[in-house]
Amino acid sequence: MSKPTLEFWYEFASTYSYLAASRIEQLAAERGVTVQWRPFLLGPIFAAQGWTTSPFNIFEAKGRNMWRDMERQSGTLGLKLVRPSAFPRNGLLPSRVAMLGASDSWGPAFTRAVYHANFAEDRDIADAAVIGALLRELKLPADEVLAKAQAPENKDALKHQTARAIELGLFGAPSFTVGKELFWGNDRLEQALDWAAKHPA
Amino acid sequence: MSKPTLEFWYEFASTYSYLAASRIEQLAAERGVTVQWRPFLLGPIFAAQGWTTSPFNIFEAKGRNMWRDMERQSGTLGLKLVRPSAFPRNGLLPSRVAMLGASDSWGPAFTRAVYHANFAEDRDIADAAVIGALLRELKLPADEVLAKAQAPENKDALKHQTARAIELGLFGAPSFTVGKELFWGNDRLEQALDWAAKHPA
Repeated sequence: MSKPTLEFWYEFASTYSYLAASRIEQLAAERGVTVQWRPFLLGPIFAAQGWTTSPFNIFEAKGRNMWRDMERQSGTLGLKLVRPSAFPRNGLLPSRVAMLGASDSWGPAFTRAVYHANFAEDRDIADAAVIGALLRELKLPADEVLAKAQAPENKDALKHQTARAIELGLFGAPSFTVGKELFWGNDRLEQALDWAAKHPA
Repeated sequence: MSKPTLEFWYEFASTYSYLAASRIEQLAAERGVTVQWRPFLLGPIFAAQGWTTSPFNIFEAKGRNMWRDMERQSGTLGLKLVRPSAFPRNGLLPSRVAMLGASDSWGPAFTRAVYHANFAEDRDIADAAVIGALLRELKLPADEVLAKAQAPENKDALKHQTARAIELGLFGAPSFTVGKELFWGNDRLEQALDWAAKHPA
């Protein structure tokens, strides 16, 4: 029997991915859609078009509007937002950890915890001490998980996942795919889930 | 007595402005918001950040997704979409005409006619013959309007309007402003109108 499934592509430095990560589980459950959590890195994708930082830093007016929009959106969602003192933060380490979580039951909770640390508590998510603390709050063996996350096969798994994102045509985050159908942005979450519900794999 | 008002900023080459122009009148009427139609040019804004064409042409994956997304969105809205054989088309002439229309009653109908010509009929909106034909369909004196549109004072009016757009922090289209509050993108139309309704000038 085929089952409605959606792949949720997120990058830990991405502000709008924070909103999507906070909304997706309930919206997917309402539609009977299974979500596959897909952390990936935007860095290599941006670098390929000559950007060395977030486009929100490169294009000043766009960045200014994004932060104001995030205030409005997070306000509507009742989600805490504290503009991070560093942006974008390097999401490599938590992405590696989230790769492990995605094939276990704790992926979504860990992902939400990382976004909350970055965008509601202004903590440095590139710091292994911060990520370790988040893991412990989830009652996970932090040292063991961090070691496994940095093992060569898991590093490779994240690289392959980012390569697959590029193959699927991803250029920003969050993105949602249903087969080869690509939806970009938190604003497309409902439409992507509706599409998944109508097009079971 | 203060009155809820929103400024609707649009560029004729902009695909998502086509969607917003087709939706805004009904949504504004439902909320009792008066819309001020503000044609402007993105060319100078893009040029200032080193772009000589639409970002949808510069960033290939983003452009590919935009056209697919436009298919999905226009389908949902029941709006005809034919991908133009030239993109972006130069919207200078129709913007000058729309400047005149904005201070008269025919601005919205003319604006919608230009978008339909560009994005549903693949007609060249930079061509005075095409714009003249659209004006005649609206029972307007085409030659007279075109001459007035190209008079120095109207050319200057459009330049000043684009300068004001930059001052307000605009970086793309469509955009919506309520005082200094800026909303970017067709996806923010409802929120911008709700904001206008709650914050009368």
